[in-house]
Amino acid sequence: MHERYANEEIAKIFSDEHKVRLWQKTELAVIEARANLGIISSAIFEAIKNFWLNAPINIDWWKKRDKEIHHDLNAFIDERLLCLPNNFHQFVHDKITSYDTEESAFIRMLIEALEVIDELEGVLERNLKKFSLAYRFTIMNARTHGQEAEMQSLGARGLTWLKDLSTAYYALGIARKNLNFSKLSGAIGKYGSIPPEVEKEALRILGFDPFYGSTQIMPRVLYAPIANALCDIALVIDKIANDVRLAARSGNPLMQEPFGKKQKGSSAMPQKKNTIRTEGLERNGVMAKGYAAMITDCIKTWEERAIHQSGVERVAWPDLFHIVADSLKVLNGVISGLKVYPDNMLKEIYESRGVYASSEVKEFLKKHLCNAKYNLKYEDVYRIVQLACFNVFEPSKERMEIRTEVAYSFEKSAELLEKTAQLLRKETVIVSIEEFIPLAALRVSEDLDIPEERMEKYNLALTVLFQDMDGRYKREVMDEWHELFTPVFLLKNESVLYKEILGQ
Amino acid sequence: MHERYANEEIAKIFSDEHKVRLWQKTELAVIEARANLGIISSAIFEAIKNFWLNAPINIDWWKKRDKEIHHDLNAFIDERLLCLPNNFHQFVHDKITSYDTEESAFIRMLIEALEVIDELEGVLERNLKKFSLAYRFTIMNARTHGQEAEMQSLGARGLTWLKDLSTAYYALGIARKNLNFSKLSGAIGKYGSIPPEVEKEALRILGFDPFYGSTQIMPRVLYAPIANALCDIALVIDKIANDVRLAARSGNPLMQEPFGKKQKGSSAMPQKKNTIRTEGLERNGVMAKGYAAMITDCIKTWEERAIHQSGVERVAWPDLFHIVADSLKVLNGVISGLKVYPDNMLKEIYESRGVYASSEVKEFLKKHLCNAKYNLKYEDVYRIVQLACFNVFEPSKERMEIRTEVAYSFEKSAELLEKTAQLLRKETVIVSIEEFIPLAALRVSEDLDIPEERMEKYNLALTVLFQDMDGRYKREVMDEWHELFTPVFLLKNESVLYKEILGQ
Amino acid sequence: MHERYANEEIAKIFSDEHKVRLWQKTELAVIEARANLGIISSAIFEAIKNFWLNAPINIDWWKKRDKEIHHDLNAFIDERLLCLPNNFHQFVHDKITSYDTEESAFIRMLIEALEVIDELEGVLERNLKKFSLAYRFTIMNARTHGQEAEMQSLGARGLTWLKDLSTAYYALGIARKNLNFSKLSGAIGKYGSIPPEVEKEALRILGFDPFYGSTQIMPRVLYAPIANALCDIALVIDKIANDVRLAARSGNPLMQEPFGKKQKGSSAMPQKKNTIRTEGLERNGVMAKGYAAMITDCIKTWEERAIHQSGVERVAWPDLFHIVADSLKVLNGVISGLKVYPDNMLKEIYESRGVYASSEVKEFLKKHLCNAKYNLKYEDVYRIVQLACFNVFEPSKERMEIRTEVAYSFEKSAELLEKTAQLLRKETVIVSIEEFIPLAALRVSEDLDIPEERMEKYNLALTVLFQDMDGRYKREVMDEWHELFTPVFLLKNESVLYKEILGQ
Amino acid sequence: MHERYANEEIAKIFSDEHKVRLWQKTELAVIEARANLGIISSAIFEAIKNFWLNAPINIDWWKKRDKEIHHDLNAFIDERLLCLPNNFHQFVHDKITSYDTEESAFIRMLIEALEVIDELEGVLERNLKKFSLAYRFTIMNARTHGQEAEMQSLGARGLTWLKDLSTAYYALGIARKNLNFSKLSGAIGKYGSIPPEVEKEALRILGFDPFYGSTQIMPRVLYAPIANALCDIALVIDKIANDVRLAARSGNPLMQEPFGKKQKGSSAMPQKKNTIRTEGLERNGVMAKGYAAMITDCIKTWEERAIHQSGVERVAWPDLFHIVADSLKVLNGVISGLKVYPDNMLKEIYESRGVYASSEVKEFLKKHLCNAKYNLKYEDVYRIVQLACFNVFEPSKERMEIRTEVAYSFEKSAELLEKTAQLLRKETVIVSIEEFIPLAALRVSEDLDIPEERMEKYNLALTVLFQDMDGRYKREVMDEWHELFTPVFLLKNESVLYKEILGQ
Repeated sequence: MHERYANEEIAKIFSDEHKVRLWQKTELAVIEARANLGIISSAIFEAIKNFWLNAPINIDWWKKRDKEIHHDLNAFIDERLLCLPNNFHQFVHDKITSYDTEESAFIRMLIEALEVIDELEGVLERNLKKFSLAYRFTIMNARTHGQEAEMQSLGARGLTWLKDLSTAYYALGIARKNLNFSKLSGAIGKYGSIPPEVEKEALRILGFDPFYGSTQIMPRVLYAPIANALCDIALVIDKIANDVRLAARSGNPLMQEPFGKKQKGSSAMPQKKNTIRTEGLERNGVMAKGYAAMITDCIKTWEERAIHQSGVERVAWPDLFHIVADSLKVLNGVISGLKVYPDNMLKEIYESRGVYASSEVKEFLKKHLCNAKYNLKYEDVYRIVQLACFNVFEPSKERMEIRTEVAYSFEKSAELLEKTAQLLRKETVIVSIEEFIPLAALRVSEDLDIPEERMEKYNLALTVLFQDMDGRYKREVMDEWHELFTPVFLLKNESVLYKEILGQ
Repeated sequence: MHERYANEEIAKIFSDEHKVRLWQKTELAVIEARANLGIISSAIFEAIKNFWLNAPINIDWWKKRDKEIHHDLNAFIDERLLCLPNNFHQFVHDKITSYDTEESAFIRMLIEALEVIDELEGVLERNLKKFSLAYRFTIMNARTHGQEAEMQSLGARGLTWLKDLSTAYYALGIARKNLNFSKLSGAIGKYGSIPPEVEKEALRILGFDPFYGSTQIMPRVLYAPIANALCDIALVIDKIANDVRLAARSGNPLMQEPFGKKQKGSSAMPQKKNTIRTEGLERNGVMAKGYAAMITDCIKTWEERAIHQSGVERVAWPDLFHIVADSLKVLNGVISGLKVYPDNMLKEIYESRGVYASSEVKEFLKKHLCNAKYNLKYEDVYRIVQLACFNVFEPSKERMEIRTEVAYSFEKSAELLEKTAQLLRKETVIVSIEEFIPLAALRVSEDLDIPEERMEKYNLALTVLFQDMDGRYKREVMDEWHELFTPVFLLKNESVLYKEILGQ
Repeated sequence: MHERYANEEIAKIFSDEHKVRLWQKTELAVIEARANLGIISSAIFEAIKNFWLNAPINIDWWKKRDKEIHHDLNAFIDERLLCLPNNFHQFVHDKITSYDTEESAFIRMLIEALEVIDELEGVLERNLKKFSLAYRFTIMNARTHGQEAEMQSLGARGLTWLKDLSTAYYALGIARKNLNFSKLSGAIGKYGSIPPEVEKEALRILGFDPFYGSTQIMPRVLYAPIANALCDIALVIDKIANDVRLAARSGNPLMQEPFGKKQKGSSAMPQKKNTIRTEGLERNGVMAKGYAAMITDCIKTWEERAIHQSGVERVAWPDLFHIVADSLKVLNGVISGLKVYPDNMLKEIYESRGVYASSEVKEFLKKHLCNAKYNLKYEDVYRIVQLACFNVFEPSKERMEIRTEVAYSFEKSAELLEKTAQLLRKETVIVSIEEFIPLAALRVSEDLDIPEERMEKYNLALTVLFQDMDGRYKREVMDEWHELFTPVFLLKNESVLYKEILGQ
Repeated sequence: MHERYANEEIAKIFSDEHKVRLWQKTELAVIEARANLGIISSAIFEAIKNFWLNAPINIDWWKKRDKEIHHDLNAFIDERLLCLPNNFHQFVHDKITSYDTEESAFIRMLIEALEVIDELEGVLERNLKKFSLAYRFTIMNARTHGQEAEMQSLGARGLTWLKDLSTAYYALGIARKNLNFSKLSGAIGKYGSIPPEVEKEALRILGFDPFYGSTQIMPRVLYAPIANALCDIALVIDKIANDVRLAARSGNPLMQEPFGKKQKGSSAMPQKKNTIRTEGLERNGVMAKGYAAMITDCIKTWEERAIHQSGVERVAWPDLFHIVADSLKVLNGVISGLKVYPDNMLKEIYESRGVYASSEVKEFLKKHLCNAKYNLKYEDVYRIVQLACFNVFEPSKERMEIRTEVAYSFEKSAELLEKTAQLLRKETVIVSIEEFIPLAALRVSEDLDIPEERMEKYNLALTVLFQDMDGRYKREVMDEWHELFTPVFLLKNESVLYKEILGQ
């Protein structure tokens, strides 16, 4: 993995040095198992152990030998025999095959790398919980399809992020149970030479249970779900990062990822606070998919094994772990350093003109208007609210002039820009559906196919509902109406999420 | 393909009816070729042709027979023999193998389906050109990393979309040249029975050149690039659609995809104008990748062929074509019906406080300040502009109060919302760096690590640059300065794009 | 899915008819829940239920309406309101959003489709168990890297297939637990309108628990592991099928997939018994990967949701299920109808000249020769066996002549073919390492870099080991030696697999 | 890339050292362009060039600076300014943005890496041509579906490999034309600051044409086809390697990849000559697909650019090149060192009992029997040949006994093995369809649903065809018949491949 995205601990785990140490562990465990079972004397095991622990593995010699005989495990055995008197040779790698030695080491590396992931994921879960609690009452408009939807708290969005992550992590937790097993069952997995009891005892020493039914290697269908679960973590993180990016769009940014005090956003444009951290998390999602696909392509192998899986795993597993560790680490930094702008969230709500309560409004009107008195149908109520929402966003006449005037030159563009600036300095009154619907002033909209007669029927119904004979608002109805637009009312049920997810 | 995304013409091309018609064409061409070469008499060809053209292929009989003998091409031959007197049987499927018959039909289907794509792509190119010309002077802020960058015209963005599309389409145009070739070289592609001359003549009749070096089948590496090129078209369309989605985000939408006058955005929230068309184009991108991957996985086959490719292609090719045709059609609808809001674009520019010219401003200051008189470095000028940009976006004191006050209840949230609304009704004066930098009033920013002394040095330099001894702005400098912020100046070079890309 | 690979039951589950029935179930459950909780009277629920169950959903009307309003769920609601008196309208789809209705239906379809998979997988597991028991003592050479390795029974290979499958299926069993949850939490998943208690009760009626922390939709990270597990089943099946294909290669086929009595293998070559069923399983593996990738690409969605996932799932889920069901069904047919040729397996063993016991032979020699008496190292013993194995396969002088004579014309090829035929009619005595090593007749091999002196040292050691002073074989040593080559000895430990995996 | 699969030249091309050198080249080209166009004096360019070429880039300083400001290109500019007097600063990176500098460097790296591929591919094409010529008359059975099909020469198979490769390489040749273009069009690609003429001249110096229509970056749809073409090369190589693996299966190996004289195949089984090189090529195919997918996922980017593509490309491009270079290199070694065993190929042909000519046989019988005299149909002839082919492979009675006797213990297996060995020592006469069909001795086969009467009709027809009244073979017919089985006859048309592909 490129040094920019590499994780030091992951790199150590998958290093040659660590790998051959783990190979030695397997070799020793097999000898120890024979001693424990009384097949050889304990003294032999002790002797070999002593020789080996006192003679560090010569990595250079090993690599050179590998190039000669084209077999890295055999080369390792040859290296380990160098420091052993001849009479001990027969006890080494006795009745086992290369992958007997390698599998336990490989599985151990996966376990260790997952522990690095655990650590980082734990921090992220804690950060997301802290975040959710901190912003429990910071209100904002939710967005579906990029459009402002109902109101929510930022904290509650944090809870959905948390659940996305914990769902992915839970799947990883289950998939890794496959790592409890290993094998020492010989060249084709049928205990041709090594007795099953030796496997059992040696694996016990190494911390594994035997997997009955391997070939020369463990079936790779055991590990593909782990790669996929790691990939899904990277994708969930990309999803969260994407929400931050969408919120950080300039204009009225709701949040921003941390920006270093000496950071430069762009070599050309000094104003830029680019979302490079969160965009990097998309990079990681993309790469994780590629690595997981490679690992999945290892499931199919010829008969009792072919070797293509070995090289894929040499590259794809460490790189996948590097990437997922990077994702966790970067998102941790983003979440814990996130700049949140509640004022901009409030500005957005204010400017969304009450439509965040449209669902409640629709239910309110349904309750009041779908009855014999008004004789409106569900469809009518829906259209009333839709029309009102479209109406309140219709531009002023001056805005409409700007909108429809096509610039035919950049001079003209400049003129329109100036006109817009002047207009904006005046244009401050925002009408929300909260004020608009009780006015019973629905207008035909060019966006909706609602004929004038229908619309008038709607306005009549609204008039009767909200106003008395003298055109004054009915107090009781209006009280109920205004409540619809308050966070207390709209977000009353978010507490159940805090209770169910955080226990508070 | 699900009927929602299916294209009628594509469906016809890949129908059983059409396929067996094309099979018959190959069979006839082989017989005709033998007649042309004098191997058999022309009368035989004419007779068979007559029998066949007068006896429509019985699809049901064919399918039943296929189920019995597990071989669809053999079943087809059996069906075709039904209507032929025995003495003609020896001339049918003579010395060729199933895939000799099928390949030319398969390739023809690809060619025909590509013609459907051509038609749709042509319309889209025209739409994008029209779009670019229509909005040639409609100015907007470009965005990199989601942040407002330099100014551009919407038309110029349209040109980048056009080039993305035409680049992808150009690659398709090259890849399809592989469809000029076909084969009739027998069971293993070595002309075991059929003479090369018969292949050549029969393929000439069918409109192909012989591919020398096939096995039983054409090598699938010929077709994978076509699938990838189709996929890339779907991805480019997804990219364009994504830009529309980003621009359509509510708040200050710059564009919106068409919204039917009877359309409903959401069953719960009537205000929604959801970007379902453009989001559907992401769906298509995702699916196209899957189908292209399947087709790529057909390149590797055992020796002189195995059959897994056949089934993959039966599904993945038509589905890929359906999806790409849908993408082109939907984007055509979106572009030709796109609602563009120039007023909102201008609002965005206005509210971006001049930073769209930051690059020019930096160059301006570099030219004026990086010299012996001022003794500032490139780094200093960069930091001056960065600081000014950050300064002009610093919130007012009242906004800052709202920003830093944490809501501890939804009642508090409501209170802050009301406070924001009041504030926004007042808060209209926007200061741009155009006004701010000549003021020489840079302030320390908590986002940047620029110490006070440095900042004061910056302000001094700016004072000397812009103001005379009496604190009045220097006329000449200011003229040059203000020009920096005009579209005429900023977008002067877009014309080269129109010239190079559209010839106007 | 193309009719060739489609599964009827899967098709029904994902049909429009079934989907809208399930939508209605959700709608009814929400009303029933309100009745159960005392929010509305039970009579209302009963009335609506009656109206609906007596008025079948008009699929055509619904589809037409969908085309008009571009919203299939809204169109469905409109259809259901047709048969309801106005005063019931307010109770329908009350305070919920489209995906509240759709999610439970979607999840139910996945559950039902998985039951189809369960059924087929159960049959396959039983078939593989039966197979393993039937061939418990049918011996064959295992193969690693396509090369003959140790001996095994065919039954034991069947056990590794079984474990591959059951491992994949176990992962599916865990992943599907995510289907216990669903949501009815409104437009953004925060219970804006619908109270959590109504969700809980309605989901209870539908057989689900609430998922706390959804957005408008359930997070798709819940389902990706299911798609991946299904894909892994298809890949494991492809692996098993690939082993059958490798064994079915003509020459000395060890097994063959069933071949219909009216089947035709090739339109050109009547002798062909093509492995079309097992090759089709590679097709399914390839396609399953594509569909799983599409579904994984649904994890990332904008904020509280965008809709690209909906279309992907409409296509990829049913198609993935069709494909996996087809894989299970076809492999069931292959395994239960598999033709096994034990005679050919024995022929292969016979002709492999004892190398299947090479591992045992090496251990035997290690035990006897790696000691003070012989002073050979582990490396030496390895090379002895390697050399012997290479030696016994060296061609006869006549064969070598044919091997090294390059054909310069096809006439020459024919001559060589005739020469080979004559030779083969004579060349029947096969020497195995079982006879060869005790002869102490190792020869220099051009494939191995073992110098003559070293080789002679080896032969000397072997002479001393096996022969007495008079050149006669030592009885006791030879008894031990010959036993190495017997299946009883070599496969003694396979029983542990039967015990552990099958309990017998 | 892991050192095992890394290519030294590729590593150098993508090294930091080389990259920053290329960045400097772009920076200098922009200054030189301004000098050429008379915008600045040539002396300035010469001065900066001198300063820079005399001050090697300080990689450590650069990396440290990058960590501080989170922007590698800005950090590079800062480093380059260190050695320049202040008054030159304004000319550096003047009016351009980071990616203006980086794109040309990135594209140059791709071009250079492709040159490494060219070199290796050229060698492979030459090797495959040499191979095809060397084995032009070495006959073997082709295989479709793993089953012996018609006869071919090994050289002709080599030609299909060559065409697979050259087709893939041709696609690469076209795709790389996109590398003729680059950009220097500023922060959003609209020449906001830099004039188009400067871009044109600077790119001319760097060897590129301007791409009109870029955003901040070149559209990534330009490069995805290159990645796909590289991937397809890796897949084609995997296909060729797979054919070698299939031919190398022990028993009667037709070819073997080179095996080092000190190589060890397995730590347990010394006889093994494992196909590790060719299996490694499957690894590369799998990995190439992953990297190409990552690069394809860079096509979609937000608006005028987001940065996820940058990191993906930092990893995926070099790794893809490493892998493809490794594939080419390894296959070169395999092809040039391939051990071919013509004797085993002849053995296989001999033992395939004439079925390699079944297609010709069928045509022969069609010609002779599908007429008024015999009154047989095409279907009958097909079934005659099918039956004959099945008949000649029917086991002897003794073999059948072994086949049908189920071993119930390993002792029984051993007994059957001994019985087989005895039988095989006798069982030498192989009857081919060449001898069998003229005998007119078709037998009912349990594999085919052909009733006795039909079969007798067939035998009668064959008798009349081949024998005279006295049961003697007809000379003329038999001459024609026997010719069918000769390579001269069967492979007569392969010459056209040599002519068309190799021109000889």
